[in-house]
Amino acid sequence: MPGTPTIGPAGAQGVREANLGTVLRTIRAAAPCSRAEIAAATGLTKSTVSSIVADLAARRLVREVGAPAERRVGRPGVGLALDERSIAAVGLEVNVDYLTVVAVDLLEGVLLSRHAAFDARSAGPEACAERITGLLAHTVADPLLRSRTVLGASVAVPGLVDAPSGVVTNAPNLRWTGFPLRERIAGLMARAGLPAMPLHVDNDANLGVIAEYRGGHLAGTPDLVYITGEVGVGAGILTGGALLRGSSGYTGEIGHVPLLRGGPRCGCGRRGCLEALAGVEAVLRHAVPDLMPDGPLSGAGLSRAVDAAVARAEAGDPAVRRALRRAGTWLGRGAAALVNVIDPAAVILGGYFVPLAPWLGPPCAAAVAAHSLAPDRPGRVQTSGLGLTAAARGGASALVDALDRGRLPLPERAPAPP
Amino acid sequence: MPGTPTIGPAGAQGVREANLGTVLRTIRAAAPCSRAEIAAATGLTKSTVSSIVADLAARRLVREVGAPAERRVGRPGVGLALDERSIAAVGLEVNVDYLTVVAVDLLEGVLLSRHAAFDARSAGPEACAERITGLLAHTVADPLLRSRTVLGASVAVPGLVDAPSGVVTNAPNLRWTGFPLRERIAGLMARAGLPAMPLHVDNDANLGVIAEYRGGHLAGTPDLVYITGEVGVGAGILTGGALLRGSSGYTGEIGHVPLLRGGPRCGCGRRGCLEALAGVEAVLRHAVPDLMPDGPLSGAGLSRAVDAAVARAEAGDPAVRRALRRAGTWLGRGAAALVNVIDPAAVILGGYFVPLAPWLGPPCAAAVAAHSLAPDRPGRVQTSGLGLTAAARGGASALVDALDRGRLPLPERAPAPP
Repeated sequence: MPGTPTIGPAGAQGVREANLGTVLRTIRAAAPCSRAEIAAATGLTKSTVSSIVADLAARRLVREVGAPAERRVGRPGVGLALDERSIAAVGLEVNVDYLTVVAVDLLEGVLLSRHAAFDARSAGPEACAERITGLLAHTVADPLLRSRTVLGASVAVPGLVDAPSGVVTNAPNLRWTGFPLRERIAGLMARAGLPAMPLHVDNDANLGVIAEYRGGHLAGTPDLVYITGEVGVGAGILTGGALLRGSSGYTGEIGHVPLLRGGPRCGCGRRGCLEALAGVEAVLRHAVPDLMPDGPLSGAGLSRAVDAAVARAEAGDPAVRRALRRAGTWLGRGAAALVNVIDPAAVILGGYFVPLAPWLGPPCAAAVAAHSLAPDRPGRVQTSGLGLTAAARGGASALVDALDRGRLPLPERAPAPP
Repeated sequence: MPGTPTIGPAGAQGVREANLGTVLRTIRAAAPCSRAEIAAATGLTKSTVSSIVADLAARRLVREVGAPAERRVGRPGVGLALDERSIAAVGLEVNVDYLTVVAVDLLEGVLLSRHAAFDARSAGPEACAERITGLLAHTVADPLLRSRTVLGASVAVPGLVDAPSGVVTNAPNLRWTGFPLRERIAGLMARAGLPAMPLHVDNDANLGVIAEYRGGHLAGTPDLVYITGEVGVGAGILTGGALLRGSSGYTGEIGHVPLLRGGPRCGCGRRGCLEALAGVEAVLRHAVPDLMPDGPLSGAGLSRAVDAAVARAEAGDPAVRRALRRAGTWLGRGAAALVNVIDPAAVILGGYFVPLAPWLGPPCAAAVAAHSLAPDRPGRVQTSGLGLTAAARGGASALVDALDRGRLPLPERAPAPP
């Protein structure tokens, strides 16, 4: 018999948090709406709604709109909306060959977005932590974020992350193991005299699927998979609208599904993994071998080689098209394993798979259909509209999502000027 | 932005149901316990607890224990426990070569259990529905269930099931497609003049993992996988203590993960699927080829061949041991795909894999460890203690589980005699 009963939504603190989240999400979806409309939509009493709205307004998360200036906060019938002027959430991504940073407001509108080639693999973890900290400090000081409270920062990493501790357990393609990234960034920020803020570290695929769920073209689809298309291939999985974390936080590692016995050597040390057959570096070594160095690619090399592969495929180069078709088929065979296990509504190809999708996508979709037992569903394989910013956007969105669940880290502040 | 906000625990009906479930689960875990203790453990008010307990007592789901006879229901301080005397839940399983039925009480104690060889594949769906209905009628009339209210019956099927409609979409190893099993059983029951009852149809692996979660040796483990070891191989997946249903209800279909290009032909029509390499029929064709007919196995043949394979492996037969080792390795490669995707705490091998586990289990565990990216975890692969009754028990448990979530289909009845 399952041990202790889970004490669900009944605890007093839990109820308040759940209700705060319910009101915030209702306003997000239905703004402008009145307190009475929120009460009707949620089943909460009007006095509970008024108390929660007052709390949210004191933290400048909600404001009144479309009401005459002389009306007070608290008057029923006044339209409410989220106040997008007060907070910012920052997401960063470090990947094998780039750094990305995105900041969003409460409506998840992008305030700023920067992308730079960066040879993270050669730099090593300590130098990466320094670059990330520098980029974060620069972002927080940016005039575009002036007068906003920064909710926190989230860092996406291509590898296994112990999210509660912020330790990167194993990132084969960066060659990091057991690196305490969150602690290191916090230490560097303190040494530089920067104000402390909540820091999160998570897997790039996990944050990619959050970005798709909250802001992609399939936003709101509760059973969704996002596949990173980098040197590594990983999957972020949402089931029932929640991130699948598994028993130890290591889900979606399809990059190491064994597909070909005795196949090419993978970054993880094994042979024939999906990543060694359809990871972007493996794809490029087949598609544009003349542009690839003997050793590992550095910095901007990967993105230049992707551009070249796209240009040649567009020009009809049969060898490039064949290599992309072959990679797409392997990707589809790996994705089929995932589709057969978790039955998502859609699998979204992200990262460098986006520019390669015209050639790699159709064979991938065909392989998924051929190897899934469930009836074929057209449109199961899709291409991301978020490109290389997905993981960083997802990290910023995850911070906003925590607010939407009623976790309010913000102090009460004076009401916003009218 | 995700469309309509989910209205979570706030709706009045939802709160009552959540609270009913919370109280029932608390009593299940902590009995005997008083109303005051329940209030303290759940955060509910004492008057809410008393009202809910009265509701549960009126339906004879809860009773007072260890209290003097003159004390009234409603008096605080009296010990409460689940009343295991009033209900029964029935689970049946139809598989390629057998029928199983199990009935349990509210504490999930087994009231009766029957297992019979039955050649479901040759019988066809209509004859199967008749046999299932006959077995159900016989079970409900059994003196062991006398004076109990039957909560309903659940039927486990090895294949894709559309659970909401009770239609078996595709069960390759039974050769059923689009068969409305629930409707057919309900019709046969009505024609035979039997009282109507709630009927559910679900996938055998889904119900197997529920049985493990509620009554197996790893009960209460929230991230758990159960693998059926029949002619078909499927996985039932729990994440966070909830069954993973996916976007269309077809999760855990690892039987058709492609493992070997150009491998043996599978029941689904493809080649090299896990099921064609490690399903029990495939295993036996390698392990005891002399006992296998050219055509499909019938009725009791499969179970007799499993017994023979076990006897020969125990006697040290190298060919049998080699075949089981090979099958275990393939099973582990397939299970690794699942472990890499959903990161369960444990994978439990069930069905006919249980008697074969001494030889098939260790190579399976080794292959899972070799092909998982996450750090190795000893004991990740386990053997079920529930044998061939798992799916039927899980079906019965699922009916009890619905009560535990506050869904009370039972009418109020007179209080139980003291």
